[in-house]
Amino acid sequence: MKGIFVTFEGVDGTGKSTQARLFAERLQAAGYDPVLTREPGGTVVAEKIREILLTDYGEKVSPRTEALLYSAARAQHIFTVIRPALAEGKMVICERFSDSTVAYQGYGSGLDLTVLRAADGIATDGLKPDLTFLFTLSPEECWTRVTKRNARTGNDRMEAKGRAFLERVYEGYLHLAAEEPYRVKLIECGGKSIGEIGEIVWGHFARAYLMS
Amino acid sequence: MKGIFVTFEGVDGTGKSTQARLFAERLQAAGYDPVLTREPGGTVVAEKIREILLTDYGEKVSPRTEALLYSAARAQHIFTVIRPALAEGKMVICERFSDSTVAYQGYGSGLDLTVLRAADGIATDGLKPDLTFLFTLSPEECWTRVTKRNARTGNDRMEAKGRAFLERVYEGYLHLAAEEPYRVKLIECGGKSIGEIGEIVWGHFARAYLMS
Repeated sequence: MKGIFVTFEGVDGTGKSTQARLFAERLQAAGYDPVLTREPGGTVVAEKIREILLTDYGEKVSPRTEALLYSAARAQHIFTVIRPALAEGKMVICERFSDSTVAYQGYGSGLDLTVLRAADGIATDGLKPDLTFLFTLSPEECWTRVTKRNARTGNDRMEAKGRAFLERVYEGYLHLAAEEPYRVKLIECGGKSIGEIGEIVWGHFARAYLMS
Repeated sequence: MKGIFVTFEGVDGTGKSTQARLFAERLQAAGYDPVLTREPGGTVVAEKIREILLTDYGEKVSPRTEALLYSAARAQHIFTVIRPALAEGKMVICERFSDSTVAYQGYGSGLDLTVLRAADGIATDGLKPDLTFLFTLSPEECWTRVTKRNARTGNDRMEAKGRAFLERVYEGYLHLAAEEPYRVKLIECGGKSIGEIGEIVWGHFARAYLMS
């Protein structure tokens, strides 16, 4: 018995949290018992590790330290949440996973991709998503949504990194999608309603897992 | 200009802290400006990472998380303390380094050596000690010293791991020394005074670096 591992990826502001929740609800309605989780974080220890990454201790954190800490948090999340659920045959829906590391820390922040992938390989021990939904919006549209949301929530972390950063992350995601078109389903969200996007998500899933 | 990187290794109770300090003092007397440091820890962020490893959050920490956290702390120590000092041409004396990881987490706690070495490789990026002093004592003698010291300091972490653990660590160190006899100088401490051991340390160093 082996569950299905689905990840939801994309730059901030594309609505992937909403879509992950809707997808989980639809799975439940269809009789599944999905586990909905997210990174960074996902466990107590992973949150503690994330705290270190978010705190300024007045000491520059080296790129390798950063890569290893992200991987340590992922290893813990996999060990505590993801693998046990998959072993029970459950579906696991995870918002952000290895692709986020490559897109954000790699393409966005410029950390060495070889180092990031090596550290991630230790964390995942070969665990890869069976299916990944990559939500895209033009960088212009993302930026508008992010700044709007930040004005509302007061969280300006993404905004502080700047628009050029967001564009690099976007490019990184497109590279990943081009490398693995079978796993990564690119969903262009511009001009579509939440319901329409939800149908596209479900359609991909159904074609891959329900129609055999 | 490239400094010399010397590590002091061995199970608890062999007196390596004392020897590291004496060696640093002797180097200073000889006109060097050595940096004396130690693991785990060595920087503010590395200490924060160490705290996570020492705290019980009521959640089992996975072996891969543990390996990645140790490596993250080492990466930070190298970046903040060791590499800058070596780049200035200084001697760096470090109590515990990669060999401790292999001996304690690998041989002692049974973490996968391949995983440990892969994570350590990301942290060190090829940095290896030029010279390593490995202080040994028979496990019996170590155990006596450790339990005596713990009675004095109230720190019983090593004692709690048990004598079988200490013996596995000891065996691990001997393997490492056998693998790299040129780098790792084995110093048997049983029946020798602090001064005698200090002379042996200095002799190895002088033969390698002062008599050319």
